[in-house]
Order: sequence, then C-alpha cells, then structure tokens
Amino acid sequence: MAKKPLKDSSKEQTPKNPLIPKTRSSVVKQFKSRRKPEFDVDDLCDSLLKGNITALSRAITLIESTKPEHRPLAHDLLQRCLPYSNTSKRIGITGVPGVGKSSFIEAFGSLVASPSNKVAVLAVDPSSSISKGSVLGDKTRMQELARHPDVFIRPSAAGSTLGGVARKTRETILLCEAFGFQTIIVETVGVGQSETVVHSMVDFFLVLKLSGAGDELQGIKRGIIELADSIVINKADGDNLQRAKIAKSEFSRAIKLFPPKENGWKPKVLLTSAIENKGIVEVRELIDSYIETSKKNHSFDKKRQDQNKFWLYQSIEEHLKENFYQNPEIQKALQLQLKAIEDHKITPFAAAQHLISLL
Amino acid sequence: MAKKPLKDSSKEQTPKNPLIPKTRSSVVKQFKSRRKPEFDVDDLCDSLLKGNITALSRAITLIESTKPEHRPLAHDLLQRCLPYSNTSKRIGITGVPGVGKSSFIEAFGSLVASPSNKVAVLAVDPSSSISKGSVLGDKTRMQELARHPDVFIRPSAAGSTLGGVARKTRETILLCEAFGFQTIIVETVGVGQSETVVHSMVDFFLVLKLSGAGDELQGIKRGIIELADSIVINKADGDNLQRAKIAKSEFSRAIKLFPPKENGWKPKVLLTSAIENKGIVEVRELIDSYIETSKKNHSFDKKRQDQNKFWLYQSIEEHLKENFYQNPEIQKALQLQLKAIEDHKITPFAAAQHLISLL
Repeated sequence: MAKKPLKDSSKEQTPKNPLIPKTRSSVVKQFKSRRKPEFDVDDLCDSLLKGNITALSRAITLIESTKPEHRPLAHDLLQRCLPYSNTSKRIGITGVPGVGKSSFIEAFGSLVASPSNKVAVLAVDPSSSISKGSVLGDKTRMQELARHPDVFIRPSAAGSTLGGVARKTRETILLCEAFGFQTIIVETVGVGQSETVVHSMVDFFLVLKLSGAGDELQGIKRGIIELADSIVINKADGDNLQRAKIAKSEFSRAIKLFPPKENGWKPKVLLTSAIENKGIVEVRELIDSYIETSKKNHSFDKKRQDQNKFWLYQSIEEHLKENFYQNPEIQKALQLQLKAIEDHKITPFAAAQHLISLL
Repeated sequence: MAKKPLKDSSKEQTPKNPLIPKTRSSVVKQFKSRRKPEFDVDDLCDSLLKGNITALSRAITLIESTKPEHRPLAHDLLQRCLPYSNTSKRIGITGVPGVGKSSFIEAFGSLVASPSNKVAVLAVDPSSSISKGSVLGDKTRMQELARHPDVFIRPSAAGSTLGGVARKTRETILLCEAFGFQTIIVETVGVGQSETVVHSMVDFFLVLKLSGAGDELQGIKRGIIELADSIVINKADGDNLQRAKIAKSEFSRAIKLFPPKENGWKPKVLLTSAIENKGIVEVRELIDSYIETSKKNHSFDKKRQDQNKFWLYQSIEEHLKENFYQNPEIQKALQLQLKAIEDHKITPFAAAQHLISLL
C-alpha cells in the first residue's frame, strides 16, 4: 500500500518575517498564517499515497466541498493522484430498494476483500440531497462490511445535480485508486439517469433484480438490459427459489434478443441469495472472467477511454449552462422572455434563439 | 375552420426592372426571381389559417427542413401562427411496440373526430432517423383513420437528436392548432427520454400497457407512473381479459402509492380492447373530465406555461452546445485535450474546465 512520497511535506510552510511590526492585527494574522491551512494539498497527497485512511477521507471531503476556493486545491490534488490511478476493478451495482443491495454488497465485499484486494464502496444517489436521508453507502446498512479491515465505505456525495454528484464520485474513484484500493464498488438506486452515469464510470455493470411478488412494479427499466453486463436475481432462496429460476430463464431469453455488446460480451443471468451467501462466488468468477476477457481483447482500456470522453463532454455541458445562467445580462433578458412566452408573444424556441444571440 | 386572412398574398413579389440589360445570365436570373419562391410565408400562412391542408403539409415541411436558410422563414411563420394556437386538447400516448398503439389511436381517433373536432396525429420517434424505418404516425398502420375526412396523420420528423425531433413536433402542434385542429394526439414508442419530451408537450399523458405474457419484459419504466395521467391496459379481450383485470387492480394499487400530482389529479387505470372497440368511450370521458377539472382549477394553463419554460431551457441548452462544439478554436483544443486524457495526463473534469476557459 505504501508508496514513495511525492514531496517532503515537513518543510516550513510560512516563512517568518521579523520586519513585520507587532501590531495587534498583524499578530493575529501571523498566528493564522502559521496555523495549518484547512487543506494542505502536499501533505494530503503524501499521506494519501502512503495509505493513510484519514487523509483519504479528508481528500474526499475536499473533492466534495462546494466552496469555490476549494476547487483549485481539489484539481491540484487530483492532478497529482492521476498517475497512480486507473488501477482498480470498478464494479457498478444497481437495483430498486428492497432488492437486497446492501446484503448483496456485504456478501460480495466480504468474499473479495483481503489485504491484497482492498475494497472501497461508493454510492451515487442524486436524491439524497433532496430527501436529506440517503441510505446509499450508509455504514449502518452494511455493519459487517464496515468493520472489515480492508474495506472503506463512503456514502453518496450530496449535490443539486446528478452531474455534480457523479463528478464527485468519479473523482473519488481516482483518489481511492491512488490510495491503493483494488476493487471499487459503486452502487446506485437508479433514480433518473443515475444508472447511466454509474455505468459510465465502471468496468462491469451489475443489475440486481428480484423475482416473485410485485414483478410488474419492479419491472426492468427499458434500456437497462443494454447497460447490464450481468443480471443477478437476488433472494433466490426459500419459497422464492422456483420463481427465481423462472425469472432467470426469462431474462436469459430476453438478453439473447439484444445484439452483442461492442466488446463481444454476452451478459449473463445469475441467481444469488445474499443472506444465505449462495451464488456470490459465481458472481465474482463472472466478473473476473469478464475483466480477463476484456483486457485480452483490449476492450477494457477502450471502454475506460470512452468513459473519460463521456465525462469530458458531460462536464463541458454543465459548465456551459452554469456560465450562461449566471450571466447577469442573460438573467435580466431571460425574465423578459419568460414574460413574453407567458403572454403568448413568442415561442419558447424563438425566445431561446434571441437569448443565445445576446451572448 | 376558415379564418380571416392575415394579409393579401396575391401581390406581386418581384418588381420588374426594365433597366437590367438582357444578357443571358440576367435573363436566367430574372426568370428565377419571378418563379414562386420555395416557401412564401405570407401565402403559406394565409392558406394555412384558411384551412388549406396542403398549406399545412408544406408548412410542416418548412418547419422540419434542415436547411439553415429555411429557419428564419419557419420562425416567421410560427410567429404569425402563434396568436391562433394554444387552442386544442393535446393528448400524449406511449407504449412499447406490440401494445396496440395504432389500433388504439385508430379506435380513439375515429370516436372523437368530427367536423367540429378535427384530429391531428403526430409522432415523436427519435429512432426513425437511425433505423430509416419509422412506423410511428405511419398512415399504413392506421388505414381507417387515415381515410377519415376530419383526421390528419403526420409521421415523426427525422433528426439526429431527440431535442430536434421534439422541437419540430412541438412547432407542428402550433401549426395544427392555427389550422384549426381541436384534438392533437402525439404518440411515441418510448425510446430513451422520448416519453419525457412528449409529456412536456401535452395536456394529458396516457400510457398504454399490456397484461399477460411477457410482463416482466414489458415491465413499466420507472418514473413513467409519475408521468402517466392514465394507464390504459389494452388488449383486454378474450383469454386475456382475466389477466387484464388483475393487472388493472395491481396498477391501481401501485398508483395510490405515489403522491398526488401537483394539480390534484389522481391517475386512473382503465381497460380497453381497441380491436373490439371496448372501453374507448371511457377513455374519452376520462380525458374530458381531466381537462374540465384542470381548466376549473387553472392547472391547465399553468401546466402549459411550465411546458413552455421547459422548452425554453431545453432549446437554450441545445444552442449552447452547438455554438461551443462548432467553434473552430474549440474543435482544435478539444482534440489536444482528448489526447491528454487518453495519455492520463489530465482528468476529464480539468480538461473541460480548460476548454471552457478558452471561450
């Protein structure tokens, strides 16, 4: 886990200047400037690369900060960690509430975590900032896993946009990799487009499903079969086993209707019972075989490159919108156009064109 | 249907100039300039408002045109039609292929269409431009309805983006209203976000469902229950009737789990058999009662205003992206950043920030 420190951080940060007169305010100032800065990127980066878990937590807090003055520090930190990243297996897991996501992750995480395969569990939950009650990545849901010495669990970042939440998680993956995690699990409950964004940051995307009662309601989101590298039917135990087997063959048939993935992978359907710890080994084997195959045929790197491009475009578009809507002239003109639209004096499309022409 | 013409379009378009020497090329030029212009907005608008169906078709063709020189003409036309729009009932219908969308629209359209309630059927199918084989709004699917004297069927506009396809349909609604259609049906097959965009242009959103075999697969897209003003279980006939009734009670229970809509409407579940022409009257009554209620409590206008805002923002964001990516300097810099990302020299987020700073 330990890595060569990038830089010696023990050097004096604040040069003393005896020429400064000792007025009251300057004393305070000097005192403040001698205090450790809130985030010392040199120090943080060194400690993180040495495998200091507190440093990792602080680094993620920096990434997640909404204070504008933290953003350049976060960029600096990420830039330094970048050469040490790109090293883990990234696994995305989605499923509706009640599908047994926590127990599945607990069983899977406990199986694969070891001193030589440290596991980080992250989450993307864009709704958490609205409901103020995120459960994703909540340690109390995965008590056993949370106590595991080789596991790190971090709840979903808060944020007003899915893009923002996703960016923070994507950057957290980078930090976790630099720290030395070899397996990174990103879970999402599948609100809005959250599956798409998680799919865009992982190597393997696993969709958890239930069979049995309430099928109609927890029915699969269209498009998700195309995202899934594997559909895992959980809670395949007790009275539910028979129905789970039927669901397995239905999904297997359905999957065959789709064209094969770009990398040639044919998604597989598996049965698990997380609480009885059954089928979990098979999931691990499937993921390992996927990663082995895709590394062999070079689709592994290609997919990561494509994902980076996705994030680039995604991020550009968020910046564009932010810059536009925060322009005071635009804000004024926007109000006038909204009024004109309300009065049926202009179509929304013509109003948009007019606003754009003001830029 | 007939309206006062806005302007006399019979006036001479091209003033003759006897001073122009009669060289060969100038003769050609003069000849060309005397020819009727491809789209004469004055003329088109007059005829359209008078209820000339050929003019409507040509107007829609102008709206759908991808030629940049047509866009100002289209804007002009829309601006003139705007005061005569906003007059119809707009009904959105979605459902997966095989649910019986065409037979349902045929049965529903035939029931409601009359000389005093002319019906236009439009479609949003973003996939049609890829597959080159749109079936939505295809007259051959709705042969009976296509022959109805008070019905106009127009297939989905083509386009490379859902936003583009949607804009054209939204503008076509405006033209159809100016023409005098009182009921406008917009159908979509539900590819990607197409339900959301159709939901954003109609007053009432109807989700067609099947019960019986293959439930798991045609399972409801999450989020769509929130969009639906009514779920209609079609093909409730023959051997399927019993299963349809069970599905109805399941959906009715499920719907109650959701908070009531902003306008207080509680979505209803109905059964229909389009081929046996059963339950269609009940659908019409439900829609009428919805529109009556929402007009009474003023949510009807509020919803349309909110939809206009949605289209304004949507359209602004499309323009922003277009302007950015078509900037030659950006295009060059983008290539460099893509290379740097590929070489793991910069994160996609930092690259995005750099590109934005070039604007």
